[in-house]
Parts: sequence; C-alpha cells; structure tokens
Amino acid sequence: MTLLMSVGLGSVSAMEQRLSLVTLGVTDLARAKAFYEALGWQPHPGDDDVVFFQAGGFVLALWGRGELAEDSSVTDSGGWGGITLAQNVRSPAEVDSVLSQAHAAGARIGRSGAETFWGGYSGVFVDPDGHPWEIAHNPFWTITEDGRTLLATNQGQPAP
Amino acid sequence: MTLLMSVGLGSVSAMEQRLSLVTLGVTDLARAKAFYEALGWQPHPGDDDVVFFQAGGFVLALWGRGELAEDSSVTDSGGWGGITLAQNVRSPAEVDSVLSQAHAAGARIGRSGAETFWGGYSGVFVDPDGHPWEIAHNPFWTITEDGRTLLATNQGQPAP
Repeated sequence: MTLLMSVGLGSVSAMEQRLSLVTLGVTDLARAKAFYEALGWQPHPGDDDVVFFQAGGFVLALWGRGELAEDSSVTDSGGWGGITLAQNVRSPAEVDSVLSQAHAAGARIGRSGAETFWGGYSGVFVDPDGHPWEIAHNPFWTITEDGRTLLATNQGQPAP
Repeated sequence: MTLLMSVGLGSVSAMEQRLSLVTLGVTDLARAKAFYEALGWQPHPGDDDVVFFQAGGFVLALWGRGELAEDSSVTDSGGWGGITLAQNVRSPAEVDSVLSQAHAAGARIGRSGAETFWGGYSGVFVDPDGHPWEIAHNPFWTITEDGRTLLATNQGQPAP
C-alpha cells in the first residue's frame, strides 16, 4: 500500500530521474547482433525481430531503423543524429582493450585512446550502423562493483 | 587483489555488458537543461558547459551538439539519427502522466499513450532538440523499487 501510494504520488509530481532502455536503429539486425555478440554481449533469448541486452539495470535494444523511426514519430535524417553512448571502464588500459576488441569485431575506430582535456582517458569506436560509443576512464566518477556509474569519486565526493 | 585480478581478466576477455552514459547533443544548453528540470530532473552541480543527470546507476548528459559530433568522430546529419530513449513506468496511467508533463514542459507529443502491438501501453514525446523518448508500461518486464529495468516478469520468468 505504501509502495502504491508513493508510485501514485510520483506519477503526478515528476518524471522519475532514470532511463530504462536505449534502442539503436540498425539496417541489418543479424549483423548488428553479431557485432555486439563479438564484443562478448549475450542477448536475451526469445525475440526474432528485436534484440534485447540486459545491461545492468538497464536495457540496450537493436531494432530495424525504419521501424524505430516510425515508432518514434520522427523523420530519419540518415546519419548521426546527436546521441552518443558511453561506457566508463576502470583504467586507461581497459579503454584500449575495449577499443581493440571493437575494432576486431568490425567497428571503425573514431579516435584512439588518449588523455582528454577533462583529465581522463578515452577513445571512440563507431559500430557498423554508425552509432558511436565513447569508452572512457574518468577518475572523478565511480564504477561500483555491480557496474553502476556514479557522479562522484570513490571517496564519495562530488566530481569537480 | 581479487578485484584487480577480475578487472584485469575482464579487460582482455570481453567488453562488459553495460552502459554508463548517454549524451544528448543540444543546440541551446540552457533551454535543454530547463526542459529536463521542468520534468523534475535535478542536474548534478558543478559544470557550466555540460549538464549531467544521475539517473539511477547511469548518467544522462546534455552537451553542445557540434562539440559532441566532433568528439564522437562523426558527421552530423542534422536530424534524428537512429537512437531512441525510453523510460518504463509502472502503469498506463503513469505513461499518460509523464507525457502530459513533457507536453507542459514544451515537448512535442509524437504519439499519445495507447495500447501497443506487443501487449503494453506507450506513447512518445520528442524533446526540444528532437530526441524522442518512448514512455512505456511493459507488463512483461520488471521495474525494481530502486528503478532498475529487468527483462523478466515480477515472477522472475523471462519475458515471452
């Protein structure tokens, strides 16, 4: 009852501050699925025309780009549209390792791992459908053991 | 030591199956920030040219679209580029409520809340920079009390 009440209050006061799912539009679902599988990702079983990956408490989906555009009530401009994904990892060496794996799996390397102006280390790969992923080590953020990314240092201080 | 070893092994065997950050490219950072604040989201303090929101164990960022394109090593096609965000909520009524809030905050409603072909209920709003958000109630997935979205029913069964 308490939960129902709090949910009810939440639904009228504000949109919860969280994200559930990101869907990547793809031109060849089998190719896209194979790319992420080559990175070691395991799809959720049971779907044929959409692929879901459980990514921590979050879901990444692959779906036909035309269907996604229609479902999203937008016009497809055909290229990159202003959204970039990122995975934060635990060391500069892990940045290089992930970029190397992505390249081996068929990604274009947009920029190799290097120190950044904000004091971290990152690089970018672009997946076969043109979706960029920044792979970053940010010493001012925290990655928990269960893979959550927090805007604070390991000491619990907010990032500068 | 065990943790370091497991991280080391992870870095050579596979990219971890998780996502840390999604960055939305925007044309007017103050406007974009105000839109998400009008939805009740609270930005992380401390940055001027980028806005971060802690969204569960995940981060949503707002940054200048031109800077993001350059940083992501991609060419901007100027419109939607094949990525749609989603938030899953706990009831059809909450879908309608969030869409109503988004409309009041200045979003375009791409499609109103309605039953979907996959057995759920959803609608879409498009933020002032053209980024679509599907707001969905999916009875086959689980939202935990702390806001994680899991590809299974409340009974722990995989989604069909």
